[in-house]
Amino acid sequence: MTAAEGSPAPLRVNGGRLWKRHMDIARIGAIAGDGCCRLAMTPEDAEARRLLAEWGRAANMEMRVDRAGNMIFLRPGADPARLPVASGSHLDTQPHGGRFDGISGVLAALEVVETLNDAGIETVAPLAVVNWTNEEGVRFAPGLTGSGWYAGFLDDGALDNAPTLEGSCFAEEAERLGWRGADGPAAVRFDSFFELHIEQGPILEQAGRRIGVVESIQGLVWLDVEVRGRDGHAGTTPMDSRSDALLASARMLVALSEIGRAQPDARVSVGQFLPGTDGPSTIMGDVRFVIDVRHPDPATLSLLARRCSEACVVEARTAGCEATVEQRVEISPTRLDANCVSAVENAAALLGESAMRMASGALHDTCNIAEGTPAAMIFVPCRDGISHNVAEYASPEDLAAGASVLLHAMLARAGTA
Amino acid sequence: MTAAEGSPAPLRVNGGRLWKRHMDIARIGAIAGDGCCRLAMTPEDAEARRLLAEWGRAANMEMRVDRAGNMIFLRPGADPARLPVASGSHLDTQPHGGRFDGISGVLAALEVVETLNDAGIETVAPLAVVNWTNEEGVRFAPGLTGSGWYAGFLDDGALDNAPTLEGSCFAEEAERLGWRGADGPAAVRFDSFFELHIEQGPILEQAGRRIGVVESIQGLVWLDVEVRGRDGHAGTTPMDSRSDALLASARMLVALSEIGRAQPDARVSVGQFLPGTDGPSTIMGDVRFVIDVRHPDPATLSLLARRCSEACVVEARTAGCEATVEQRVEISPTRLDANCVSAVENAAALLGESAMRMASGALHDTCNIAEGTPAAMIFVPCRDGISHNVAEYASPEDLAAGASVLLHAMLARAGTA
Repeated sequence: MTAAEGSPAPLRVNGGRLWKRHMDIARIGAIAGDGCCRLAMTPEDAEARRLLAEWGRAANMEMRVDRAGNMIFLRPGADPARLPVASGSHLDTQPHGGRFDGISGVLAALEVVETLNDAGIETVAPLAVVNWTNEEGVRFAPGLTGSGWYAGFLDDGALDNAPTLEGSCFAEEAERLGWRGADGPAAVRFDSFFELHIEQGPILEQAGRRIGVVESIQGLVWLDVEVRGRDGHAGTTPMDSRSDALLASARMLVALSEIGRAQPDARVSVGQFLPGTDGPSTIMGDVRFVIDVRHPDPATLSLLARRCSEACVVEARTAGCEATVEQRVEISPTRLDANCVSAVENAAALLGESAMRMASGALHDTCNIAEGTPAAMIFVPCRDGISHNVAEYASPEDLAAGASVLLHAMLARAGTA
Repeated sequence: MTAAEGSPAPLRVNGGRLWKRHMDIARIGAIAGDGCCRLAMTPEDAEARRLLAEWGRAANMEMRVDRAGNMIFLRPGADPARLPVASGSHLDTQPHGGRFDGISGVLAALEVVETLNDAGIETVAPLAVVNWTNEEGVRFAPGLTGSGWYAGFLDDGALDNAPTLEGSCFAEEAERLGWRGADGPAAVRFDSFFELHIEQGPILEQAGRRIGVVESIQGLVWLDVEVRGRDGHAGTTPMDSRSDALLASARMLVALSEIGRAQPDARVSVGQFLPGTDGPSTIMGDVRFVIDVRHPDPATLSLLARRCSEACVVEARTAGCEATVEQRVEISPTRLDANCVSAVENAAALLGESAMRMASGALHDTCNIAEGTPAAMIFVPCRDGISHNVAEYASPEDLAAGASVLLHAMLARAGTA
């Protein structure tokens, strides 16, 4: 039976309140062009945390803070023996970031609790709203710090000593700002975890769908490439006598792009490219760059990395140079929990929202949490696929739809009392 | 009649003295790996100038210094009404330069005078030995400063105010170091000008010849290219939805190299390449680079520049980006004086040295002087074509052969009394 057939319309979140919360928090660390700069464990981050804590308190939730500064708000359930059904994301931003990346996931989880409060609905399992620390990895490297420590991928020492560029470390900064808690990792364990996030890509927008049912998160390999040729004089060295490392690298970039295009769902990119010399009349003797390879399937990811590596060696030789390729980072693809994914899909169907299954192109805190906890993600469209950019934008309607899907996915998991 | 048929062997320079002078001057500003760092109008340059002045005095030459610090040593001829037959090059080096680029041309000219002194030979026309200021263009931009001012391409104001990176200017530095003279441009005019230089390329070495008879100097065009795409997330942006300025630039570099290869005697290079962003997971939204195009023929040079420009626009479009191309620098090819070129060729034949006609790939002070004065150049091989590099090397034998060719070319022009 559907709403159209006369049953009461399914519960929806308060989209106006959700949007207002976005705008309120965006004032903290606001930068030109509607952007935000709130790096983790800075005064701006601390101020955003205080505002969230206030909202959590007003929603009658208990707040717990762990060593990593992760904020976990708890709403009791009818059965205190059940683990909480959790949802959240992160409040920190890129240096020239937007108002939605991460923030929407924290605020949507808060909105779910507020909507249930308004409707007087008690769940069987408790609920939790989470703000993970330093997802972006800008202030402290690597990123996904809070969730990584929570899931046991980062020990206390590595967390505490993670350095800032200014010479202090995570533990000092967290204590100084008052966001250093006592809880150890996973002091609060979860039944399941749902993360709403803007897509950060153009797929939903191009497909004309509102809800991305994320069933996997792409794996990632970084390959460090070093190309060695021979410096030379641009005027005196005949074209056939050159060992031009820049030209060799250019041939590699073209070949790498072809490899990426030939494999469905693959992403092959070069974003860090370091020329070895900088004179208009110098043939370049060395270049270094990093290949970013992604795919949702582990075997295909390995195959792609191997193809990329081989292409570099072949193209270097063709251009009279040498190349060495080293794998620096490998993050396996994450397959999300089938039941949680179905819960998201069913919630979208219940609400009549257009939805599609998809892989996440970006890494998220859910990658870490999903290792030990059933998890799924909900994507909402962002304009022109733009993210990590002050122009990042998600519409109030899409955010509300995503939060309502989150509400019903969490309700399905937690049960109503 | 040749030497083999019984006539006295033609006069040759003192190769041991020429080599010793190279090694003596190389101690000034010596850097690791047998290199030299003697930027124009630095204490090191001043010290090298003092040593050259001492050698010139010992060779009974009068020294004149002009506003640009150019040093012109004069050896009288039997006919004081004749203009001097001149030869020289430059003593300044690249920051990681070698012991031969420029220096060999000054010392070979000095050696010609010393050889004539030793042999008691008077010429009809006077002779001149020249050290041009700031050929390399490292301390003051652009390069070829002294010869450009001498030839009237640079006025007094532009010369005097040419800034250093440290905030002072040419006039201040030249006065501080005592190398600011009173002479105006071309106060001493020349009958003709010969410049010996290491080839700075591999052509002579590969052809197994000792003397390059330089009949032209390649023209040069610099094209500034700006490529605009759209920053994006490497994980979330499908391969077909990208406007990757780095990939577009790579396609351009490959196309530019093909254009260079397809045209005989062309050089097409990219040595300055400036990525707009520097994150391994960011699709690059903008790139700038400079194309260095060279050819000895003016019409072909223009054609090449146009082809390069068009290729950038086409490849940008193919990669979903935009490119703008602007011509920043254009230096026309220089055709050297037929009589002076023949004088060099005849001198090589007289001495039995293997020789070949060729174009200079690099710019030299001769480009400026040849505008108003009959001129030619003599190239000698340098090992592996390496120059602008501490490993730059020319053998004592090749340098002596080149200086002997210079001797006979100058004698042919000046006449013996």
